[in-house]
Amino acid sequence: MNGPPRVELLCVGSELLSGKVNTHAAAVAGRLAEVGLALSREVTVGDDPAEMEKVFRESWRRAQVVLCTGGLGPTFDDLTRDVWAKVTHRPLRFQKPLMDDIRNKFRRRRWPMPKENRRQTYVLAGAAVMQNPYGTAPGQVLVAGGKVLALFPGPAREFFPMMEGKFLPFLRTRLPPRTRKTKIYRLFNFSESAVDERLDGLRRRSRAPGKIEVTWGILAQRFIIDVKVTVAGPAPAAVESALARIHSAVLAEFGGDVYGFGEETLQECVGRDLRRRKETVSTAESCTGGLVAEKLTRVPGSSDYFMQGSVTYSNRSKRRLLGVRQETLRRHGAVSAECAREMAAGCRRRAGTDWALALTGVAGPSGGTPQKPVGLVYIALAGKRGVSVTEHRFSGTREDIRERSALTALDRLRRALQKKRSGGRSGTSG
Amino acid sequence: MNGPPRVELLCVGSELLSGKVNTHAAAVAGRLAEVGLALSREVTVGDDPAEMEKVFRESWRRAQVVLCTGGLGPTFDDLTRDVWAKVTHRPLRFQKPLMDDIRNKFRRRRWPMPKENRRQTYVLAGAAVMQNPYGTAPGQVLVAGGKVLALFPGPAREFFPMMEGKFLPFLRTRLPPRTRKTKIYRLFNFSESAVDERLDGLRRRSRAPGKIEVTWGILAQRFIIDVKVTVAGPAPAAVESALARIHSAVLAEFGGDVYGFGEETLQECVGRDLRRRKETVSTAESCTGGLVAEKLTRVPGSSDYFMQGSVTYSNRSKRRLLGVRQETLRRHGAVSAECAREMAAGCRRRAGTDWALALTGVAGPSGGTPQKPVGLVYIALAGKRGVSVTEHRFSGTREDIRERSALTALDRLRRALQKKRSGGRSGTSG
Repeated sequence: MNGPPRVELLCVGSELLSGKVNTHAAAVAGRLAEVGLALSREVTVGDDPAEMEKVFRESWRRAQVVLCTGGLGPTFDDLTRDVWAKVTHRPLRFQKPLMDDIRNKFRRRRWPMPKENRRQTYVLAGAAVMQNPYGTAPGQVLVAGGKVLALFPGPAREFFPMMEGKFLPFLRTRLPPRTRKTKIYRLFNFSESAVDERLDGLRRRSRAPGKIEVTWGILAQRFIIDVKVTVAGPAPAAVESALARIHSAVLAEFGGDVYGFGEETLQECVGRDLRRRKETVSTAESCTGGLVAEKLTRVPGSSDYFMQGSVTYSNRSKRRLLGVRQETLRRHGAVSAECAREMAAGCRRRAGTDWALALTGVAGPSGGTPQKPVGLVYIALAGKRGVSVTEHRFSGTREDIRERSALTALDRLRRALQKKRSGGRSGTSG
Repeated sequence: MNGPPRVELLCVGSELLSGKVNTHAAAVAGRLAEVGLALSREVTVGDDPAEMEKVFRESWRRAQVVLCTGGLGPTFDDLTRDVWAKVTHRPLRFQKPLMDDIRNKFRRRRWPMPKENRRQTYVLAGAAVMQNPYGTAPGQVLVAGGKVLALFPGPAREFFPMMEGKFLPFLRTRLPPRTRKTKIYRLFNFSESAVDERLDGLRRRSRAPGKIEVTWGILAQRFIIDVKVTVAGPAPAAVESALARIHSAVLAEFGGDVYGFGEETLQECVGRDLRRRKETVSTAESCTGGLVAEKLTRVPGSSDYFMQGSVTYSNRSKRRLLGVRQETLRRHGAVSAECAREMAAGCRRRAGTDWALALTGVAGPSGGTPQKPVGLVYIALAGKRGVSVTEHRFSGTREDIRERSALTALDRLRRALQKKRSGGRSGTSG
C-alpha cells in the first residue's frame, strides 16, 4: 500500500437502526490508531439485501480496506456472506473444518446443532478464516486486487477479540514498519478534568524531538480514568527511550494514585498484592449486595486468597453471620460507622482472614432519610492493627452508588496492601 | 409523501471516527418509530469537506428525509452549512434574529461573543430555523422538491430536544397517520438459531392481511434472546388486534420459556414473583462468587425478599457458614451434587428463608480435572418441598461460565415460583 489506505467500516444489523447503540466505530477507531490508520467513513445498514448490496458495492469501490461487521449469524436474515459473494464475484465455499468446529461447540453445550448453523460454514472463495472462540460465526479476510475485506461477527464480545488477535496482526504485515508503543495508567476516584489539568505540564514537557510523535488521551469509564500515552516513530530505540522518560514523569506526578496499568482492574491489583504477601481476605456486604466478593472472585485463582463473603441484607443476618450487636443496630442503625466497624471485625474474626472489608449504606433509590440520605455509605477495613472506617456520600443511580462503593472498598484495601507490610489502619478513622 | 419515505441519518464529526461512541442512530431510531418511520441508513463522516460533500450528495439523491447532525458549531472546521449550500444549490442567508439571540446568550453568561459565532447566523435560503435552547447552534429544516432536510447540532443534549420538540411535530404534519406497536419477548437458555427455527411457523402464520405490516427480529445478548415483533398500519384497531393475535401465538409456542417482556431482567421477574407470594430467598455461592446475590440485590427494594447470601469459596466456609458435612466434602468433593444439596439446605435452614439457591462448580480457566472439567456446575434449589439439584456443563471464559451459572440459577427459581404455589422441587433431581 502507498500512503495510508482509505479504511471504511460497514455495520450490518437492523437492531443498529432501531435502537441499539453502535459502539463499533468507537472501538475500531482506537484499534486502527494503534497501527497508524484512521476511519474515513462508517455506514450502518439494516438486514436488507438490496440496501446492503448498494452499500457494499460503493464501499468496495472507494476504500482500500473494508471492515464489515454483523450478519454472519445462522439465521435467515444473516446475509452478509451472500451479499459479499455477489459484490466480489466470488462463490461461497463450504469449509468442512468450520462445520466440525461448530458441531463441537454445540456438542460441548449438549445442544443439538440446528441445521441453520450450516450457513456459517461458507467462506468467500480465496478468503482466510478468522477463528471465533466466543461464538459460532467465524470471521473472514479476503485480499483481492490490492484491497482488503474483513468480515466480523456483530456482537462486540466476538468482534473485538477477533479484530485485536487476528485482524490487526495481519494488517500490520501489510503496512510500513513503524514502532508504536502505548502505555495506559489507571486512576480511580479522579475527575476527567482534574486529571487533564495535572497532565498539562507533563504534556508540554514531553514534546519529543524529531520524528517521534507523542499522543495523550484521557478516557473516563465508570469511575476509572485511563491516561493513555502513545509514542510512535520509525526508530524502535528512540520510541522506547521517549516512552521510558514519559513513564517516569507520569509516576512522579501521580505516584500511588496510579493503581494499575493497561487493562488491570482494582481486584487484580488487590489479588496480586495479597498473593505476594500470602495474606487472605473476606467480605461483609450490605448495600453492595455481593458486588465486592463478585469482583474479587472474577480473578482466576482468587480462591488462594479470598476465603468467604457474606451478603447481610437483613439485620438478623448482620447479627447472626457477623456478630453485630443488637445494641449497635438499635442505637446507630444498620447504616452507621459503628455497624460497619462491627461487620468488618466480626467478618475477619469468623472467617479467620488477615483482612476483611465491610460495607453498609443506602443505595437507593428509596430508603433515604434526611439524616441518612441515599448515597451515604460506610466502608470498614479490618486488618491486624485494627479497624478503620470511612464515610462517603456518593451520587447517581443505585447502580452507580453500588459500583463506586465497591471500587472504593477495593481501593482502600489496595492502598493498605501497598504500604510496607503495615497491616490495617489506612485512611481516616471513623 | 406516498408510502413510508426513505430516511437517512448523516453524522458529521471527526470525533465520531476516532473513539467517541455515536449514540445518535439509536436515539433517532426510537424517535422516528414513534411516527412510524424507520432509518434506512446511517453514515458517519469526519469534518472533511470533500468527504462530506460526497456523502451529502449521495444521500440527498437517495432519500426523502435526510437528518444531518454535527458541524454547526462556530469554528473553522464546522462546515455542514457550507457543504449543504453547495449540494442543494442554495445560498446561505444572514439572519439578524439569530445574531441577536446568540449575542443574548453570551451576554447572559457575561462572556464576550467571539466573532466566530457569526457563522452560526447563516441559514440555507428557504429553510426554517429550529431554536436551540441548550446551545448557540440553531437547527434548520428545508423542504425542497418534496424532500426534507434537517440540520441539527451534534451534542446529544442539544440535538435530542430539538428532534423531539421541533422536528417531530413538523414531520407529523407531513405524514399519513400510522400506528406502530412493538412487543419484546425475552428468552433465556436458547440459541439464536433454535429460536429462529421455532419462529419459522409463527412468522408464516402471522402474515397479516392488507395494510398491516409485521416485522420480526431476533437479538442475542449474553445468553438472553430477545424476540421483537413490530406491527404497523394505518388503523390503530387493526394494529392492536393483529398484535394481540401474535402475542397469543408467541406465548402458545414458547409458553413458560418466555421469562419476561421488554427490558425485564431475570432478577426483576424473580423479585416480582417473590413479592407477590410474600416469600424470601437466600443464596450460597461458590463458583459464582456472589454474582447471584449481586444480581438479586440490583433490584430496588430487594431487601423485602432477599435476606442474606454467603460466598463460600473455601471448604472451611462451606462447613462453618452452611453446615456442609466434612464427610461429604471428603467423599464427593466441593464440586458435587451432594455438596450443592447440603449448601442449599443449610443456607435455607440457617437464613430462615422460603427458598435458597446454591451453586458450586469449576469456573476455570484452571482447576479442572478429567472427572470435573472447567464448566461443570451444580445448582441446587431448596424450597419447602425439598432440594433439587441440576448438573450443567457450560463452555466459554470464566466470566461466561459464571454469568450462565447465575442466570440458570435465577431461571430455575423463576420457573419454580411460576408454578402454582407448589414450592420447591422443580427441574430434574440430581
